Amino acid sequence: MEHMDVTFLGTGTSHGIPVIGCDCGVCHSTDPRDKRLRTSIHVQTGGFSLVVDTTPDFRAQCLRENLRRVDAVLYTHSHVDHIAGFDDLRRFCELENKALPVMGSPQTLENLARVFHYAFHAETRYPNYVRPDPRPVAGPFEIAGLDVVPVDLPHGRMVTTGYVFSRGPRRMLAYFTDCAGVPPEAEDAARGVEVLVIDGLRHHSHSTHLTVEGALEASRRIGAAQTYLIHMCHDLGHAATEAGLPENVRLSHDGLRLRL
Amino acid sequence: MEHMDVTFLGTGTSHGIPVIGCDCGVCHSTDPRDKRLRTSIHVQTGGFSLVVDTTPDFRAQCLRENLRRVDAVLYTHSHVDHIAGFDDLRRFCELENKALPVMGSPQTLENLARVFHYAFHAETRYPNYVRPDPRPVAGPFEIAGLDVVPVDLPHGRMVTTGYVFSRGPRRMLAYFTDCAGVPPEAEDAARGVEVLVIDGLRHHSHSTHLTVEGALEASRRIGAAQTYLIHMCHDLGHAATEAGLPENVRLSHDGLRLRL
Repeated sequence: MEHMDVTFLGTGTSHGIPVIGCDCGVCHSTDPRDKRLRTSIHVQTGGFSLVVDTTPDFRAQCLRENLRRVDAVLYTHSHVDHIAGFDDLRRFCELENKALPVMGSPQTLENLARVFHYAFHAETRYPNYVRPDPRPVAGPFEIAGLDVVPVDLPHGRMVTTGYVFSRGPRRMLAYFTDCAGVPPEAEDAARGVEVLVIDGLRHHSHSTHLTVEGALEASRRIGAAQTYLIHMCHDLGHAATEAGLPENVRLSHDGLRLRL
Repeated sequence: MEHMDVTFLGTGTSHGIPVIGCDCGVCHSTDPRDKRLRTSIHVQTGGFSLVVDTTPDFRAQCLRENLRRVDAVLYTHSHVDHIAGFDDLRRFCELENKALPVMGSPQTLENLARVFHYAFHAETRYPNYVRPDPRPVAGPFEIAGLDVVPVDLPHGRMVTTGYVFSRGPRRMLAYFTDCAGVPPEAEDAARGVEVLVIDGLRHHSHSTHLTVEGALEASRRIGAAQTYLIHMCHDLGHAATEAGLPENVRLSHDGLRLRL
């Protein structure tokens, strides 16, 4: 059975950490785990290379991880901190002269096509542009030998897409970023997952994101073996926050790698 | 008379240098001047802080230069490598609780409002979003005690806006990025300028950008005292390229500062 290698490309909220012009302790921390680019993961399994979201930092993230191949992109939603690096996908089209499957909810793909109009419309596309192959997600699908179940997650006025990745009987990874809660359907889809990656913005409440405490509750309900918080703001220093968490809940950090 | 301090935030083409997955000598160069984020400058004069374009690297550029205040943004055009960092302007609105004048051609502002729809429409704007104050550029204007003359520059199927900055009798800076040529009107507006910053993509021809040789010709016709090339691709190593240029023509590099 192939491994599934997960690399955290970025783990921070939309501002990134440090926040521009901020003098707080976390923004001035010398712990490298407190430097957070915008939230995204890379999944490698067999020869297949998948990214979830393309942040404004996508080029920097690719260079840091020496990413030289991308075979598909999954989008969770179309907020700017999750899509702004879309154009840097062009290099992966160019390197292998291929179009790139781009997956997400119909609403997400519609927004992508509005924002990156030039790439989605043949009449404006230069030969060296990104060549998206849009594939709206309407239900469970298979990619790279993985079964993927998309779930709806509430995120203020919008819905984001969470993804649960399984192989055969193994429910391996649930990726629930940018959500204010985990509805019963999403909880069921992720039940007993090996690794849950979940929004854990900060301690005090926010209208569109889970708190650390909300993430802990969701993790318990789901029964995740291991949980990693993601999309943290500068309220949460890595070391101090982890000290207060159960053993099987950690903060993710940029560059963290997991082998499942 | 106030100085005009110009900082080069980024000097590279849309790929940035190094290019993802590229093994060429320039992409592997250890000369820090060969590391190029996407093209943008910052202008400080008196207490006024102005950026020209907001690249996908805008947050990284602000952190590198410890930029803690922005009072206005000028856009040259709406290609993604010049606008993708727009959302990171939110921090400058937040720090001083202010809307930010955003200037560019009507076409550029229309595209910005399409791409960053959420920020330009009151009904979707959260309190902590960027608050743009759109100011279409229709002719010469004054900002921060500078007289600014906008000029049209050809850039393939589109037109970009060049800006010539003067104070009283001094024609101080002409900023002509992303152009395949400099038409007579733009040449006249920049005639005898102290510093010309101009597109110098590479040596061989390109349909939408000036070559180094084209930039040199334009510089001679304009009679610029000093010229800096910008928006260079990985064909141009800093040291080797400069060795072949006249004394008053240099390559710009990220972090370069000029006091005019």
